[in-house]
Amino acid sequence: MMALDQDHPVEDLEPADSWALLAASELGRLAVSVGDIPEIFPINYYLHDRQVIFKTAQGSKLVHLTINRNVVLEADGYDDETAWSVIVKGTAKTIQDTELIEAARKLPLPSWIPTVKYLYVQITPHTISGRRFARGPETWQ
Amino acid sequence: MMALDQDHPVEDLEPADSWALLAASELGRLAVSVGDIPEIFPINYYLHDRQVIFKTAQGSKLVHLTINRNVVLEADGYDDETAWSVIVKGTAKTIQDTELIEAARKLPLPSWIPTVKYLYVQITPHTISGRRFARGPETWQ
Repeated sequence: MMALDQDHPVEDLEPADSWALLAASELGRLAVSVGDIPEIFPINYYLHDRQVIFKTAQGSKLVHLTINRNVVLEADGYDDETAWSVIVKGTAKTIQDTELIEAARKLPLPSWIPTVKYLYVQITPHTISGRRFARGPETWQ
Repeated sequence: MMALDQDHPVEDLEPADSWALLAASELGRLAVSVGDIPEIFPINYYLHDRQVIFKTAQGSKLVHLTINRNVVLEADGYDDETAWSVIVKGTAKTIQDTELIEAARKLPLPSWIPTVKYLYVQITPHTISGRRFARGPETWQ
């Protein structure tokens, strides 16, 4: 059982702890809003100098929905006793600078289709927050 | 390594398979949009008659941001060979009917604070989609 209660967090994490958890993870869910309708995508990301980097195929839906928008990235995880969730709010843009693209290519982001041309997207965080939840014993009502 | 590529899914799941995966999970991330700004929350949910039910404390931020809004719920998981992600789009409302509240209380949704009064929120799905991704071997570029 993976039980959370978002209303009664056991612990609000310090920013440094939130950054550390975000850096140690690589799977997140990116939420965007288009015409006040939310969308959500699972992504692999890499944290580099406190910038969230991910890549996606040129022309993908994710590019169009993400660029120059307010986005939210959530990552979470758990061990036997606690669960954590970190949320980053920021703005997304494609990386255009050739040197930065070369640097981004060296980041450990998986490529599934070697022949596809990828765009690298950079999320500049404005805020980060994290919470850690105790897990069980649970009561059911 | 938990690697996904949202642009090159190995498999679009049939709705029945997406429902089955959603029903077998209990942790999701709920995205909402407020003034065209996205928000995201981890939640425990339960799937009942193809309605997504979760509970949250009365007066919580999650209630205010969710009710009568378009919401998106994402759940995911993985085994050694594949990863999956299911996305439900729908509309949220609080459950007001006394009989339905009594029924919701019997659902396996954890309560962390026995003294808190909870509201039950029901998401009526409009669409469901799911994808399954192969995992590794990965190439890095």
